[in-house]
Amino acid sequence: MEIFVCLDVNQAQVRFLRQIAGNDVIHIAGDCSKVVRPPPEFISCQIALGNPPFPWLKSADKLRWIQLESTGFNEYAPLADLANEPNPILTNLAGFFAEPVAETCLAGILALYRGMHKVVSLKETRTWRGDRLRSCIRTLAGARVVLFGYGAINRRLHELLQPFGCEVAVFRRDWKPVSLDRELGRADIVVCACPETPDTRRAFDRRRLGELMSGALFVNVGRGSLVDEEALADALVQGTIGGALLDVTEREPLPKCSRLWDCNNVILSQHSGGGSVDEIDRKLQVFANNLQRYRQGKALVGQVDFRKGY
Amino acid sequence: MEIFVCLDVNQAQVRFLRQIAGNDVIHIAGDCSKVVRPPPEFISCQIALGNPPFPWLKSADKLRWIQLESTGFNEYAPLADLANEPNPILTNLAGFFAEPVAETCLAGILALYRGMHKVVSLKETRTWRGDRLRSCIRTLAGARVVLFGYGAINRRLHELLQPFGCEVAVFRRDWKPVSLDRELGRADIVVCACPETPDTRRAFDRRRLGELMSGALFVNVGRGSLVDEEALADALVQGTIGGALLDVTEREPLPKCSRLWDCNNVILSQHSGGGSVDEIDRKLQVFANNLQRYRQGKALVGQVDFRKGY
Repeated sequence: MEIFVCLDVNQAQVRFLRQIAGNDVIHIAGDCSKVVRPPPEFISCQIALGNPPFPWLKSADKLRWIQLESTGFNEYAPLADLANEPNPILTNLAGFFAEPVAETCLAGILALYRGMHKVVSLKETRTWRGDRLRSCIRTLAGARVVLFGYGAINRRLHELLQPFGCEVAVFRRDWKPVSLDRELGRADIVVCACPETPDTRRAFDRRRLGELMSGALFVNVGRGSLVDEEALADALVQGTIGGALLDVTEREPLPKCSRLWDCNNVILSQHSGGGSVDEIDRKLQVFANNLQRYRQGKALVGQVDFRKGY
Repeated sequence: MEIFVCLDVNQAQVRFLRQIAGNDVIHIAGDCSKVVRPPPEFISCQIALGNPPFPWLKSADKLRWIQLESTGFNEYAPLADLANEPNPILTNLAGFFAEPVAETCLAGILALYRGMHKVVSLKETRTWRGDRLRSCIRTLAGARVVLFGYGAINRRLHELLQPFGCEVAVFRRDWKPVSLDRELGRADIVVCACPETPDTRRAFDRRRLGELMSGALFVNVGRGSLVDEEALADALVQGTIGGALLDVTEREPLPKCSRLWDCNNVILSQHSGGGSVDEIDRKLQVFANNLQRYRQGKALVGQVDFRKGY
C-alpha cells in the first residue's frame, strides 16, 4: 500500500509518519496547493493525507481514502461525479477545530469589548490615552448573544460564555428566518459558525444585517459566503453596527482593495482561527487513529456526507 | 450639609446627583486632579465624592467622609496623621472593578494566545499572513495559571477560566515564597491582582521573574510597584518570557522612553482595565447607597482599613 502526504511536516513528524506507515510505502510531499500536475507517487497511492488539489483526483484511480486536514470539503463535492470506481472515501476533521476557533471567537469579542485593538494600535505610536479609553469599552457580562449554527465550534463557545451570564439564542439547522430576525434586533453579538449550504449561503444579506443594533458585533468564523461582504463593509463604515471579528472572507487572502482593511473596530484574524502550535501533531494523531481503523476494516471517523454538506 | 463632587459627569448624572442631594447643597466641580489649591466649596464641605488631591485635605476641617472613586487609596494613607479631628471616614470601591478588570485580564491573555495583537498590527499595513500565523498561536485550554492575590478581581477571573479547564494555583495574603517560586517554574500564565503592601511590593523582582518558563505570560492588573519593571523589560526584550499584559506601570502615563512600548508580545492596556461605558453611573449608584446609610447613621460600605492596606 502507498500513502501520499501533502502536509508541511517537520523532522519529528516525518519520523512519526514513517513509524505508523510500518511496511507501507509513504511519500511525504509537503504543501502541494500550488502544484498543477499530480506527481507519479500520487497517481499510484491508495491513501492521501492532506488536501490534494481536486484536479489531481481525475488521474488517481487507485485512491481509496483521502483524510483531509480541514473541516471544509466543498472543493471535493464533484468527487461523486468522477469516473473513479469505487469512489474514494473522504474523511474530514469535523470537531477538530472547535477549541481553537471558539477561543479565537472569544478572544476577538473580548478584544473588541475591552479595547485591546485600540491599545495595540496606540502602542505603535507610543500614545497614552489612559482614562479616556475607559468610557469607550464594554463588559461582556450579561450580553445577548446569537449563535448561528450549533456545531462543535458554537457549542464550545457556548460553554466558554457560561461564566459571563450571557443570554444566548441558538439557531440550528432548522432555523426559522422570522425568529432569527427577531433575535438579531436585540442581540449584542452574533456569531456565525456553520458550513455553507443552500440554507446558509448569504443568510446575512443586506436586509438581515440591517436588523442589527448599532452597537452589535458581527463574528464570522464559518464561511465568507454566509454574509454579503459589501453590505457588511457598508454597515461597518457607516457605523450602523459596532464592529466585527472576521476569521473568514469571501476571498482569501483578502484583496488589498477591500474596505474591510480600513474599518475601525474590525479584527481580521486571517483564517488563523483553527491554528495552534500543536495543530499538525494533532492532525497526525487523527490520521494515525483512522489508519489503524482502515487496516482493521472499521468505519472511518469523520466520513463526509455530501448530501448534508457537512 | 454640603457635598463636593470631583468627578466628570454628564448632564443626566448631574440631575441624578442633585436629586439624591435633596435639600443638601451639592457642588459639582468635575475632574480636579490638576487643581493645586482647594476651592472654597471644598473647604466648607462635609462629604466629598471622587479623589480630591491629598494636599487639599489639610484645609478641610469640616470634611467627615470621602467616597473615593477608586479601589486604591495609598495616596490618602497619611490621612491619619492630619490634625483634622475627627478624621474623615474614607470609603473606596473595593470589588467594584472585579468584572471589567477580570474581563480585561482574559481579553489580554486570549489576545496574546490567539494572536489578536499580531493581526491588529498586520491590518494597519494590509498585510495578509494567513496560514503562517497558525503555528505561532496557542490555546488556553488546560493552561497552568498562577493567581497572585485572590481578591474580587482574581476570584472573578478564576470563574471566567473555569470552562477552559486550567490548572489554577492561588496565592492569598499568606503566600509562601517557596511555594510561589515552585509554581512559577511550571506556570503558563501569572496574574498579579493585589494591592501594594510591604509584602507584595517588588514581589516580582529580577530573581523571581527568572523562575518563569520561556513561554510564560505575565499579567499585572494590580500595581506597577509589584514588579521590577526594568527586569520585566529585560525578560521581554530577551524573550526569556513569552509576553505580558500590563494594565498598570510604575509611572503613568508610561514615559515615552520606556522599553515596554517596543516589546513585541506586550499589550499595554493603559490602566483602562476598570473602565466600562456605565462606569460613572455605577459609581454614582454606590455613592447614593452610601449617602443613604450616612444619613441613617449606618456603617458605610467599603470603609478603608489603613493597617491592612486594603
